[in-house]
Amino acid sequence: MELDKIYAPIKEDLSKVKDTLKSISRIEYKWLSEQLDYIVNETGKGIRPALTLLAGKLYDYDFKYLLPMAVSVELMHTATLVHDDAIDKALTRRGQETINSRWGDEIAILMGDFLFAKAGEFVSDTKTPRVIKLFSQTLGIISSGEIGQFRGAYNIHQDRDSYYHRIYRKTGSLFSLATQSGAILGKATEEAVVVMKDYADNLGIAFQIVDDILDFTSTPEALGKPVGSDLIQGTLTLPAILITESNPADNPVKRFFEKRDKKDVAEVIDIMRNTGIIKECYKIAGEYCENACRNLKLLPQNVSRKAFYDLAEFVINQGT
Amino acid sequence: MELDKIYAPIKEDLSKVKDTLKSISRIEYKWLSEQLDYIVNETGKGIRPALTLLAGKLYDYDFKYLLPMAVSVELMHTATLVHDDAIDKALTRRGQETINSRWGDEIAILMGDFLFAKAGEFVSDTKTPRVIKLFSQTLGIISSGEIGQFRGAYNIHQDRDSYYHRIYRKTGSLFSLATQSGAILGKATEEAVVVMKDYADNLGIAFQIVDDILDFTSTPEALGKPVGSDLIQGTLTLPAILITESNPADNPVKRFFEKRDKKDVAEVIDIMRNTGIIKECYKIAGEYCENACRNLKLLPQNVSRKAFYDLAEFVINQGT
Repeated sequence: MELDKIYAPIKEDLSKVKDTLKSISRIEYKWLSEQLDYIVNETGKGIRPALTLLAGKLYDYDFKYLLPMAVSVELMHTATLVHDDAIDKALTRRGQETINSRWGDEIAILMGDFLFAKAGEFVSDTKTPRVIKLFSQTLGIISSGEIGQFRGAYNIHQDRDSYYHRIYRKTGSLFSLATQSGAILGKATEEAVVVMKDYADNLGIAFQIVDDILDFTSTPEALGKPVGSDLIQGTLTLPAILITESNPADNPVKRFFEKRDKKDVAEVIDIMRNTGIIKECYKIAGEYCENACRNLKLLPQNVSRKAFYDLAEFVINQGT
Repeated sequence: MELDKIYAPIKEDLSKVKDTLKSISRIEYKWLSEQLDYIVNETGKGIRPALTLLAGKLYDYDFKYLLPMAVSVELMHTATLVHDDAIDKALTRRGQETINSRWGDEIAILMGDFLFAKAGEFVSDTKTPRVIKLFSQTLGIISSGEIGQFRGAYNIHQDRDSYYHRIYRKTGSLFSLATQSGAILGKATEEAVVVMKDYADNLGIAFQIVDDILDFTSTPEALGKPVGSDLIQGTLTLPAILITESNPADNPVKRFFEKRDKKDVAEVIDIMRNTGIIKECYKIAGEYCENACRNLKLLPQNVSRKAFYDLAEFVINQGT
């Protein structure tokens, strides 16, 4: 099923979220406005704000508070990407020049801070201390997780568990914020909030696993960056971990981390394409999607619940 | 009067604020904890958390909410310094290596983000949407102001007004958040909140003017960085603006911005020490301090009000 169809129950409100995102560039400083326009007009999948709205639709939908929340999670996501790109010295994202590449690291740092500030302003408009606290805790989890990832770069001694832990921090935690806050603001029962957290934690991990697979199996055009970028940056993802497991003593991932010779990256990509490793990674992502859905039956049977199942299926089918 | 004496009414609670700041380094990740320790053990003047506590003491003092607020403003201040140092490629601050110098720009970016997150967590513990929103708005003012400063670097065409506007964003706005939020959480009347805002806006500008004076008149040991650092970074401050005003067509500030020859910086410092420019700058800072105090008489006559007068006097007497 395509995203458009999954988003059908929230279609109009999701476009209001996008309009609000665009409106933040209408500020007094002309050139800052130009840069903000550049950032917020990037067209991502909008999966995080969609999670907020869908979770908010389970019980007592109140768009007045869900709108700023959905805007806030997308802004936090954007801010983290702007800083990540500066840290990774990435040149392109989604096929367009990164902020650091176009305006320099200094502007990327400050623009990220400005976006965090805007995200904080929007979340404060929910007037709900519980989700506001969750928002800041999530930023803490993401940034300390990124510090861990940066410090672990080119370290071959990372197992699957440390990887799952890391991608929970990187992606699962923000999916979790988006979904839980939607449920809380939509006056869900406490049981439903727990179900939504469990769903989002697992969906986020599955989403990141698939993202990490695509980094090896997709094309530079579709990725908007070179194939194997994660490995080149020294980030050990699940497909690469599986290669190291198959021959710990000698494998091209280990060799690349030791010598940084790009021919080893080519060999890694070759192995991905000619062995069962990618299939195995999809299987693991599928298990996380199943875990995501395991308690959805406890939720009210409505359009949101249906969308959550469909979204899990969408995540696992990306790129296959 | 010394700061210790001015802080007397809040002495014990201010030390609890410092203890709480130190406690944030007690987290699961050992090496992150080491870096946090390094940051939060820096000993600044603590003027921002002191403003929060003093403003909170005007009416109905409730330390339960003032504590997280005071911690939050100091953390936001620290986070902005960490990012500023990375942007300025500063090597030392208060005589100790900067985060970027010791651990690299990447860690400085992420550590700043982590500190923003922690600041956000603490402010959410006030459970007061009004101050939470003010917190995020302030971060937006500071970061967009820094973008303006960065873009205006080495630009000689900046007048006094643009300078006052810039340092309000840089320093006044956070003084204002610290003070207003203390007043709000201390159940001050709306009139008193306005008086406090006016006080803090002006005090912050005076404080920054004096800081900018000291950058030229102090010693490298006292500054913990080279004399004239602002000018070297391309930041046009009040003393330098006064030099350009005295001879717009040809002056060492203009020459330095054009040719970046350090002998012109030496000439600037020489002019500062041998003309009336510094005295003129102190006079202007003094006017801001007077403006800061103009409406204090409308506040209840108590230890806090006395401390606000003393603090204004302290600010203007620094370095003289």
